[in-house]
Order: sequence, then C-alpha cells, then structure tokens
Amino acid sequence: MSVIRVHSAIRDYEVHLSESFDFLDAFEKIPNRFYVIDSNVWKLYRDSLFAYLNPQLVLVLPIEEERKNLSTVMEVYDALMARSAKRNMTMISIGGGIVQDITGFSASTLYRGINWIFVPSTLLAQADSCIGSKTSLNYKNYKNLIGSFFPPNQIYLCPKFTKTLKDKDYFSGMGEVIKLHLMGGEVLARELMSNLPALTARDNPTALLSAIEKSLAVKLSYMQDDEFDTGKRNLLNFGHCFGHAVESTSEFAIPHGQAVIVGMIFANIVAKARGLMSLDLFHELQFKVLLPALTTRPTQSQLNTEQIMAAMQMDKKRTGEGLVLIMLTEGFEMCKVEDMGFAELTSANQELLSTLAKA
Amino acid sequence: MSVIRVHSAIRDYEVHLSESFDFLDAFEKIPNRFYVIDSNVWKLYRDSLFAYLNPQLVLVLPIEEERKNLSTVMEVYDALMARSAKRNMTMISIGGGIVQDITGFSASTLYRGINWIFVPSTLLAQADSCIGSKTSLNYKNYKNLIGSFFPPNQIYLCPKFTKTLKDKDYFSGMGEVIKLHLMGGEVLARELMSNLPALTARDNPTALLSAIEKSLAVKLSYMQDDEFDTGKRNLLNFGHCFGHAVESTSEFAIPHGQAVIVGMIFANIVAKARGLMSLDLFHELQFKVLLPALTTRPTQSQLNTEQIMAAMQMDKKRTGEGLVLIMLTEGFEMCKVEDMGFAELTSANQELLSTLAKA
Repeated sequence: MSVIRVHSAIRDYEVHLSESFDFLDAFEKIPNRFYVIDSNVWKLYRDSLFAYLNPQLVLVLPIEEERKNLSTVMEVYDALMARSAKRNMTMISIGGGIVQDITGFSASTLYRGINWIFVPSTLLAQADSCIGSKTSLNYKNYKNLIGSFFPPNQIYLCPKFTKTLKDKDYFSGMGEVIKLHLMGGEVLARELMSNLPALTARDNPTALLSAIEKSLAVKLSYMQDDEFDTGKRNLLNFGHCFGHAVESTSEFAIPHGQAVIVGMIFANIVAKARGLMSLDLFHELQFKVLLPALTTRPTQSQLNTEQIMAAMQMDKKRTGEGLVLIMLTEGFEMCKVEDMGFAELTSANQELLSTLAKA
Repeated sequence: MSVIRVHSAIRDYEVHLSESFDFLDAFEKIPNRFYVIDSNVWKLYRDSLFAYLNPQLVLVLPIEEERKNLSTVMEVYDALMARSAKRNMTMISIGGGIVQDITGFSASTLYRGINWIFVPSTLLAQADSCIGSKTSLNYKNYKNLIGSFFPPNQIYLCPKFTKTLKDKDYFSGMGEVIKLHLMGGEVLARELMSNLPALTARDNPTALLSAIEKSLAVKLSYMQDDEFDTGKRNLLNFGHCFGHAVESTSEFAIPHGQAVIVGMIFANIVAKARGLMSLDLFHELQFKVLLPALTTRPTQSQLNTEQIMAAMQMDKKRTGEGLVLIMLTEGFEMCKVEDMGFAELTSANQELLSTLAKA
C-alpha cells in the first residue's frame, strides 16, 4: 500500500492506495464509527465486503445530483444524532463525488468538524476529487453554490471498486486522469499516451492504480500553496471552462469528465489558433489521447454557440468582462486568459463541431 | 485606531479598534459590498449612521436565538443571490454574536467563502466572540450543533455601539471581559479590579476600549497554535462548564456572560476545596470582581443540583465519564480536570447557593 501525504491548512491528511480491500477490516476497530454508504455501492457489496457491518452503524444514502443539497445533509445529521453522535466520532463514507460532497459538508459542519474517512469508489473521485478539501452543494437553482474547505482525515482507495462502474462513469473519470497527466508535463503526457490502450481496455489494475497515483501527484503539485484556490490551483480548471458549459447545455447528459475532454479539445483548438500549440502536438493529443477517450460525444445542438456562450458567462470563477480559458501550450506549460470574445469562441466551436463530425 | 493582527490557518485577519465610527465611511468604497444588519441595530442607527446606505445593498435581519439556524442562513443566501452575488463580493455584517454566527456561516459556505467584514455591536462580541473563527448554528433541538471555522477578513469595533445596550446585555459582555482578564495573569487581574468601578458605571469609553483590547489579547494568547480547539484553547471554557448548565436550567433567562460569572464562582469554590486556591485570593475575587459584576442572579431552582448535573453531562466537549471543570488556581494558572463527580458537584453547588443567598 503506498501513501501520499497531503499538507492542508486545515489539517494534514493521507491517501492510502491499495490493490486490495483489506483496509476495510481495520475500520472495525475505530470507536464511535458510523458508515455512510452510497446505495449503489451498498447494493453491489452488501453481501460480500459489507456483510460484517453492524446495520445500526450504517446509513445507506440514495445518491443523485438532485439530492446534493442541504436537505440530504440534514438526513445525515439526523442519522448521526439518532445514534448520539459525539464530537469524537468518526464518519466513514464510501461512494463517489456526490457522497464526498454530502458527507464532507456534513462532517465539516457537525461540531465544526468531526473525524472523517473517505473511501472513493468511482474513478473520478479516486483520481481527482478525493484530494483538494472541497465540498459543494447545490442550492435552489444554483449548482455548487455552497460548500466548504474540509479534507478527510484519511482517504483509502482501491481501484477494484471501479470494476463495477458502468463504461459511462469509468470514462468520465478517465477524462480527469487525462487532464492531470497532460498538466503534469511532457514525460507524464507521453507515458499516458502509451498506457491509454490498457486504461481504456479496463483490464490492467496495476496500470490503473499507477495512473491514479500519478494523477493525484499532479493535482497536489497545483494545489501546493494554493489550497483555497486563489491562484495557480485555478489552472486545474483546464478543460472545465468550456466543459462546464457543455454539461449545462446537455443538461448533464454528457458526464463531467467526458465534458472535460471536449473542453480540452476546444482549448487546444484555441491554443493552436493563437499560435500557442504546434499543429504536430495538436494532432498527437487529438488522435492519441482525446478522441480515443471520448466515448460520449455531445450532439450539434448541445454545442450551440449562443448557449455555450451564455453558460460560460455564468462561470463562477469569472470576475471580468471577457471569457476565461485555460490552455495547454507547446512545452506542456499551462496558460490562463480572460479575454476570449464571442468571435473567437464561435470560430473555435465551429472547428470543434467539424472535428467531432469527422471523427 | 489600534490594530490587532490575528494569525489564522484559514487566513490572517485584523481587528481595528476605534473610538469613533469613521471606519464606516470607508466601507462605501468597497465594490460589490452588501450589508447585513441586526434589526435592533438598524432601528437605533438607521436615521444617523446608516442614513447614507443604499437600501438595495442592505438586508435588515431580525435576530433572535430561535433564528440562529440554517433557515436564516438561507434567507441570507437568497438576499445575496437576489443581488447577483459573485464570489468576489464583500459581506459587511453589523450586530452581535447571533449576527456573527448567521452571517459568518453564510460567508463561509457561499462559494466556499466570500470576503467578510464584521462590525460587532455588543460588548460580548467586541471583547470575546469576534475573534476565534468560530460560527455556530442551532439544529432542531441541539444548541450550536453545527458550525464552521471561518474568520472575518477584517473586524472593526467601536465601543460607542455599546452605549445603547441594555444593562442586561452589557453585563453579559462584562462576564467574558472579567474571565479573560483573570486568565491573563495576576497583573491584568489586578488591573481589572481597579478598573471595575469605571467599567460597571458605563461612563468611561477609554477604559472600556482598553479592557476590550486586553480581553482580545488574552483570548489570542490561548488560541495561539490551537485555532481548531483541540488543546489549550479549551481553557477559555473557564466558567463555561458550569455556566452553560446554568443557561440551560434557566432556559436562557440568565444571559451568557452572567452565567459565566456564576460558573467562575463555582469553579473557584471547587479550586478552594481542592486546595488549588487560597482563601485570600478566593475572597478577593469573590468580593472585588465576581459578585459586583453579577447583576442577574440565578434562582435556587435554576441551580437544582440534579438538573445542573444532567446539563453538565450533555457538555459537547465531554468525552469521558467524569465531569469537566476548568479552574483558576493560585498564581493565576489555569487547570483542567475531568474527574468531578456528583458528590463534589453537590457540595460546591451548596456553597454557591449560600453565597448567592448571603450576597
């Protein structure tokens, strides 16, 4: 089991990467523990991995984006208080990003912060969201409007959990894995290109664990000294400026990580047009990385330029007049601009549409 | 205007202490500002201090303990979003501890933390709660069950606000001022003894500002290296272990800081009985500090031993079997025990009752 140590202003924490589920046994020795488990994960493992759990200590939580809000947080408070939760209790939550958001927000606010162990079960959560201290909740019509900075005390991840993921969810996670490898510099990017066939074939757990570990290491390097996301951590939004808009225009039919791949193709088109990326690198990334991993493609109407523009103007991170775009440039350096206008967006979006039509 | 700089793991911040209200003018230059003002403070100052404020930028918030919950936080979210709040907005909140809790929790969770300026208007908030990063909300029947660690970016305080406080609220604040001076060592404790007549007469703003500044400095020294309250910061609960119980048995008829004074008398009785405090010091504190500042006294039934015991067992900070008590000892050192049993509680409570009956 390898361990990544993460420094956080709130508290330092550790990510334990394991090829087996053995770590679950040790949880049973934790006093005042309480499990919150995604109902999908529960259904898959209730008679095997979780058969030994005392049902009194488990809340099985039905998970969907519509439930990522304060009402569900209150369900968690109620379940914990019904078992006389004290401030020295430990919550162990098992699931994907939505479980992380709901239980993380609950853990951060109950007694101003209780002990929390998170076991990410999706590739997206394992390779990306589990570190970074962020929790988010939807509020009324506002997506991710509220949240907190609060890391788990410990994260335990095992790629075996991803075996039961649907292709749609697995390749959503793969989008962030690709993004982080591209952001990690040329060596890592080329390593990804050679491992991508194994990763997309879903048959090499050792390659997957290694890709997860490297993804987390890259994310960490961008979070260093910017935990609260006021500077370079923002570059992790590579692929997200346009990607979030595609999620929105597709009404979330395009999974998050897949939308990020579309967003990276878009950013590369702009980088190429601005002379920041060579045609060679552009083509290499397009055909060896991005298009092969794009399994859920947006339709023409989901890429309507006016709607994309409107969605990008809503970007929470935007504080000025122009649109924000983060690009990978030749030499694998990141670059952020805040001056993208409608004409540039329209032209790049046209090229994106014809790329997707041809591919 | 003197300034206290506070180091915080979340972000460093400053407390500006001022004899005048001039700082309010400068707020008008802050872009994307929004005011949240306690309705009581608003009524008192709407035609004077606040006459120039754009009503579109003000939420007047009716304040009561029953409203210190997530529903009121949502009222704040709604008011902010109705004015298209962006993540670079600044919330300026003016009021006492409840306003601090509601607006601080709102500011900490909206966009995972927006800019926040706090102007404490009560003595309790000025001399104690404004620093320390804590926000708390009630949840269902649980008092202060949920909350966050989130300091304001800036705190501006002016003791003039306390002129309009009712005696009941002023002397509640005085309880914490006394506690912090006693915890600051012998020199500060004796300084308080000589200033107490001026402070209780409420006619010397310079003495008050100085007492506030010293109270904050003592609190800071206990928070140093323990912002998240896992060690020595806990000693700030001097007077609170028993005091919280008195608040509870009196159904909050005894104001917080007054209950803390009762709690300090109780703690001193135990310290004397355990040989940790001399009779001389005990009497000096009793007659020169604690009894003169105790203006709202609990009745005999509010000090029912069984009920006090039951309430102390509910203490959120308690993790073991015995009751927790924090005591001042001879030499003005603090000491925490976790072994107080029912017999010791009963006997000390008897002495407390007869002290209050005689005084």
